[in-house]
Amino acid sequence: MPYKLYYWGGIPGRGEFVRLAFEAAGTDYVDVARLPGGLQEMLALMKDPGAASIPFAPPFLVDRDLLISQVANILFYLGPRLGLAPQDEGLRHVANGLQLTITDLLAEIHDTHHPISVSLYYEQQKPESLRRSAEFLNNRLPKFLGYFERILNRNPAGREHAVGKELSYVDLSLFHLVEGLRYAFPNAMRVHEPRVPALAALHDSVAARPRIHRYLASDRRLAFNESCIFRRYPELDQQV
Amino acid sequence: MPYKLYYWGGIPGRGEFVRLAFEAAGTDYVDVARLPGGLQEMLALMKDPGAASIPFAPPFLVDRDLLISQVANILFYLGPRLGLAPQDEGLRHVANGLQLTITDLLAEIHDTHHPISVSLYYEQQKPESLRRSAEFLNNRLPKFLGYFERILNRNPAGREHAVGKELSYVDLSLFHLVEGLRYAFPNAMRVHEPRVPALAALHDSVAARPRIHRYLASDRRLAFNESCIFRRYPELDQQV
Repeated sequence: MPYKLYYWGGIPGRGEFVRLAFEAAGTDYVDVARLPGGLQEMLALMKDPGAASIPFAPPFLVDRDLLISQVANILFYLGPRLGLAPQDEGLRHVANGLQLTITDLLAEIHDTHHPISVSLYYEQQKPESLRRSAEFLNNRLPKFLGYFERILNRNPAGREHAVGKELSYVDLSLFHLVEGLRYAFPNAMRVHEPRVPALAALHDSVAARPRIHRYLASDRRLAFNESCIFRRYPELDQQV
Repeated sequence: MPYKLYYWGGIPGRGEFVRLAFEAAGTDYVDVARLPGGLQEMLALMKDPGAASIPFAPPFLVDRDLLISQVANILFYLGPRLGLAPQDEGLRHVANGLQLTITDLLAEIHDTHHPISVSLYYEQQKPESLRRSAEFLNNRLPKFLGYFERILNRNPAGREHAVGKELSYVDLSLFHLVEGLRYAFPNAMRVHEPRVPALAALHDSVAARPRIHRYLASDRRLAFNESCIFRRYPELDQQV
């Protein structure tokens, strides 16, 4: 029975980090909410009064009778099963620590356009978004990018990967992070990317992998848009 | 060799979730940065140019030659070793999913007083904090509390624990969450707590455990204060 991924259709969002793992491994999966009736199935599962394990929010994974929520948790579970995690248990926790730092960064990226509330539209929190985005681009983004660059440069197995000597789900997530940042903040990334060459090289090497290359060209890959975490609001980008 | 926890001294902060696990298990640990010279040791580790595994931020755990960062990751690692995680692998991922939802809530609590930037003082982002806190108390806090209440009520092994039939690190974290929320938002919690009786009962049962009871009365337990995640700014609390 294939793995079932439950996530909102129409945006790459947080579900994309899980999709990339399935796609890179060439593993069969069902992206449930993108099938006819799938959204209703997802919402029913989230509200099932008989279910013991209920997620706070999508994405979640169903593997037979197990329901696993939270992206980093899903990837920690899938990593060894898809051949996308280190063999060594200690290194698996190193990978998980990096994935959780990516999670933190994603939350900060989300809050550049929603600094006050997820219940309000961007347009209802625009002055705060302008202020938060400027702080994010000046202080936080370079700190996070520099951190991941150091992680790559210090990997004892080589700067081609974040952890260990093989592709892991952390590499795939870093690829998507760069993709999203380029979409949302093109001006800022033109300034910052040259300072993180190992991260940029990792991005390119992931994009060039045959399965990922085919996936990116397929209609399974959703385009970024302004309902996603990564949004292109030119007024929030670095001004040139 | 005892486990070494590295976290800022002077605040419970995120380190407290790890301390509670050690204390509940009666496990020997060193709270490094609270010892003379410990803060310097922590900062040196974070900047060590030779280290492969560097944390983005405290807390992190050192167990022999392994350095593990991110609270949920540390607890996932320690859980089975301290007897504070379910035996079943699937349930361990359920526990991790819950812990990561607590992590998300903590980030939202932090941002009630820092909605714009961690580089600025609260006083420099007070109008935004007032707006974000009101949204948090009206929409997000009841949603999260209601979620954890449902998790307890639907636990097939009984509502005394979040996962499985024994104490886990998730229970300890929920205890501290309630403690912190009572400190930061006493008015709001007086309204919300009666609606989540299983969560309130879990809080009390954790507090009554002999080792936790002794810990809370000891000088190892740091008091909440306005440098922590949970801050008591009366203007941000629900107005009565």
